[in-house]
Amino acid sequence: MQDNLITPTPSAYTYPLLVKQLLSNSQHLYGEQQITYRGELRYSYRTFRQRIGRLASALASLGVRHGSTVAVMDWDSHRYLESYFGIPMMGATLFTVNVRLSAQQILYTLNDAGAEVVLVHADFLPLLEEIQTELQCVRQVVVIEDGQGTPQTSLPVAGEYEALLSAASPDFAFADFDEHTRAATFYTTGTTGDPKGVSYSHRDIVLHTLTTTMALSAQRDGQRLHREDVYMPITPMFHVLAWGMPYIAVTLGLKIVMPGRYAPDLLLKLHDTERVTFSHCVPTLLQMLLQASEGGMHDLSGWKIIIGGSALSPALCEAALARGIDVFAGYGMSETGPVVALAQLPPGYKPANLQEEVRMRCATGRPVPMVDLRIVDDQLHDLPHDGKAQGEIVLRAPFLTKGYFKKPTASEELWAGGYLHTQDVAVMGRDGFVQIVDRIKDVIKTGGEWVSSIEVERLIAEVPGVLESAVIGVPDAKWGERPMAFIVSKAGSRLKAETIRERLLAHVEGKRISKYAVPELDRIAFVAEIPKTSVGKIDKKVLRGRTA
Amino acid sequence: MQDNLITPTPSAYTYPLLVKQLLSNSQHLYGEQQITYRGELRYSYRTFRQRIGRLASALASLGVRHGSTVAVMDWDSHRYLESYFGIPMMGATLFTVNVRLSAQQILYTLNDAGAEVVLVHADFLPLLEEIQTELQCVRQVVVIEDGQGTPQTSLPVAGEYEALLSAASPDFAFADFDEHTRAATFYTTGTTGDPKGVSYSHRDIVLHTLTTTMALSAQRDGQRLHREDVYMPITPMFHVLAWGMPYIAVTLGLKIVMPGRYAPDLLLKLHDTERVTFSHCVPTLLQMLLQASEGGMHDLSGWKIIIGGSALSPALCEAALARGIDVFAGYGMSETGPVVALAQLPPGYKPANLQEEVRMRCATGRPVPMVDLRIVDDQLHDLPHDGKAQGEIVLRAPFLTKGYFKKPTASEELWAGGYLHTQDVAVMGRDGFVQIVDRIKDVIKTGGEWVSSIEVERLIAEVPGVLESAVIGVPDAKWGERPMAFIVSKAGSRLKAETIRERLLAHVEGKRISKYAVPELDRIAFVAEIPKTSVGKIDKKVLRGRTA
Repeated sequence: MQDNLITPTPSAYTYPLLVKQLLSNSQHLYGEQQITYRGELRYSYRTFRQRIGRLASALASLGVRHGSTVAVMDWDSHRYLESYFGIPMMGATLFTVNVRLSAQQILYTLNDAGAEVVLVHADFLPLLEEIQTELQCVRQVVVIEDGQGTPQTSLPVAGEYEALLSAASPDFAFADFDEHTRAATFYTTGTTGDPKGVSYSHRDIVLHTLTTTMALSAQRDGQRLHREDVYMPITPMFHVLAWGMPYIAVTLGLKIVMPGRYAPDLLLKLHDTERVTFSHCVPTLLQMLLQASEGGMHDLSGWKIIIGGSALSPALCEAALARGIDVFAGYGMSETGPVVALAQLPPGYKPANLQEEVRMRCATGRPVPMVDLRIVDDQLHDLPHDGKAQGEIVLRAPFLTKGYFKKPTASEELWAGGYLHTQDVAVMGRDGFVQIVDRIKDVIKTGGEWVSSIEVERLIAEVPGVLESAVIGVPDAKWGERPMAFIVSKAGSRLKAETIRERLLAHVEGKRISKYAVPELDRIAFVAEIPKTSVGKIDKKVLRGRTA
Repeated sequence: MQDNLITPTPSAYTYPLLVKQLLSNSQHLYGEQQITYRGELRYSYRTFRQRIGRLASALASLGVRHGSTVAVMDWDSHRYLESYFGIPMMGATLFTVNVRLSAQQILYTLNDAGAEVVLVHADFLPLLEEIQTELQCVRQVVVIEDGQGTPQTSLPVAGEYEALLSAASPDFAFADFDEHTRAATFYTTGTTGDPKGVSYSHRDIVLHTLTTTMALSAQRDGQRLHREDVYMPITPMFHVLAWGMPYIAVTLGLKIVMPGRYAPDLLLKLHDTERVTFSHCVPTLLQMLLQASEGGMHDLSGWKIIIGGSALSPALCEAALARGIDVFAGYGMSETGPVVALAQLPPGYKPANLQEEVRMRCATGRPVPMVDLRIVDDQLHDLPHDGKAQGEIVLRAPFLTKGYFKKPTASEELWAGGYLHTQDVAVMGRDGFVQIVDRIKDVIKTGGEWVSSIEVERLIAEVPGVLESAVIGVPDAKWGERPMAFIVSKAGSRLKAETIRERLLAHVEGKRISKYAVPELDRIAFVAEIPKTSVGKIDKKVLRGRTA
């Protein structure tokens, strides 16, 4: 058997898939296109490309080399966007620090990742000073002033970001290297144990960019992305590379609006003045935007917003649609690139009514090209695509993480059997539409039945007066587990547990849930707020702790 | 210095970029989508996928293995589409035979490529019989009957295509292998020497699919491709993998119409009945379609057609636009994947008038994402992007051929200095728009000036009564070379050389060409037809032979 490999002629360029290649022609084609920071600062792609060179030159002068790790602690700024390119393009690793973690967790991740240099916004200097004595690898700190003037600090400051860039050459020679080189690292805060480092290679980032763009743009009706869009991220840049969208925006040469620290009023103002058309965020942020825009001062129609991080509820979806927002769900995890599915209608399909449209926009979605998404039992056997059979979503795709940083056991669990295990339980319809019904660990096992906590939350959300809810399984001597609901009611509502229970029992008759799914009255609790993780997901671990 | 490579956990799937991955989710998402052969035969993507498995099983039973080469000689059929997937997915090489070459050239290519098995349409059996005794590697032949019944032949027939597929299992286990494995080979007929074998790897095909789709679909106005399109190739499947478009169509799950042997009336009928919206062809074929559709029986509006192979003339472009065809140029070569640029308007740009629109649609175009397209002098230095400086187009892209099959010298020439040399001379504007002015070898060097033969052809085409023209340089004792024009006039026109010369001289005053570019009267010849290569390009080699 021949291997049948193509042997390049010696002079052929073998073109590694590197982050720098995403810029191959944007300078020529979109040199004059704009990037703005909060509408206050504005420069062209041509300048952007030069600043990437300056950043690399400046970092090199601080000793950053191929293989170094450079951490970034900043709001969503043009500087963050520059670091998305400049740091990986040097062959160094961009470490996007989750600034919402506790100081001790940030310390753990900085030491675990081996960060040598930190680019840090003045706002986060106190946080860094707090853990300064315990930092094991950080040699130098670059301070981002952002208009506050030079702060006093005990940290080893190498200079101020803008001052260093001004003094550095734009003509950094970005070398070629292996496309499997680590480009970016961040930490995922699981429900147990230390945060786990997730890394993506240059190849991963490039392939995620290409496949996601294909999925978003190759629709006629419901085309979600095109070259005339104006992009503003509303998912933090430290969160799974802002879902990979900044790389897409730059590759397409879109006008980019970096909003800095998120404040609903500013986000809405930027939307209006910069004519933003494409964003992505978690449901909580969409809710905040809708609330802040009440009164009708803002025309939100035509704004395309991908919702991820947690499920898009039909109620929120309907409220957004009523404002003209083209809202739809995306699916992925920290470990999956992240985008592996999008809630896009099948080509040519027209929903029968608003209810069906809402259902489809809130669905987990259809897999993007080249993603092999399977719904399997615990033996990795495929389950029928009948919209009923529940199994775990397992994945193969050209951009998934290949394991956790220095965590061999967790890495092997993630990839058991050669498929990435999402721990999401879902059904798939004949049309390839996937709907998650729960997380494996959140499924409530009661009386021999599996009850989806998410399904119960969804039905509770339909009850008038409910703002938010979370359902978990609590131990029960007789049934093994029983569902327990935590509910935040809207201001002024006089919601009672009886009402919730009655409404759920009505759905038992309508066969939308089993009778085992309805919590007893004393397992329906009204609370002031639902605990959330640093990225805005419901923290069921905390809720379980409260009931233990 | 660390290498900073990501080491996958042992169980991780490292996802090679293989042709089979383009089918990752099309079975689930588009299982019911249709593929039709001439409107006579029709089956679903689900059946398509099964037939790919059957084809591989059948070929395996004939001894085809990883590394084997399987040749195909067929019209543009569903069988050809099956072979685009089934053969490479086995790890074998798909060899698409140019059936328009002479029997001796076909013999050369079959022997050079080492084809072991040939899938051959009954129409091409006589051609193969003619060279039978000289075939060095062909063990077996699979006959494609296509309704003619079983022909008698002296060739070693292993069976009939449909019969073999019926008897074979759809459940072929397509293994993973290195993404640099040769997937497809074909021969390019240069102007000198033997045909040269061009190969593409699985990786090349996948990356070409992703980047070209991104370029075609991510436009708002002028979106050229989306999931509701109906695709019909009108570039032969043997010609640079039909410009890679069949792979794109299958990945997007489009309805596909395979037209068989090209006949303008049938193509127009299929366009109408199957509601074709997306095609690609050479200018000559577009001209034939326009002629065959005269009389207004066919509504061609909304048909998106990419023109490649040779330049789209403004006259033809205007004629197509007048019929409502969304016609535009694409740029590439056999060696380049092929698509490296598309004549798409910059986002948001509205042409000032029809003339400008035509000019932009006929341009060489703007590079697609990840394509590094440079205009350089002979020292590989960049020339200004001023729309004036003429230099060679050189390329880097993730899907270019890495050299010619068993031709080390030609391969090194192709890749001299680490860039693929197109031998096309072009200018680039500030907006990244590229316009080819000539082939390096077709540039006419006269009196110390370089004259673009294509520019002269374009101006001649504007003269009423001209159907087609070709301009070459002929030796001249005083000037080195002088331009000579060969012209085909329209039926019934009484065009004279004087008229041509007068019109060209008028353009000298208008500064569109230099006076050196105008041929003398005795170098303007009227001919019955312009010689063409097997793929429909003007064959200047033949014309030079005539004047030598």
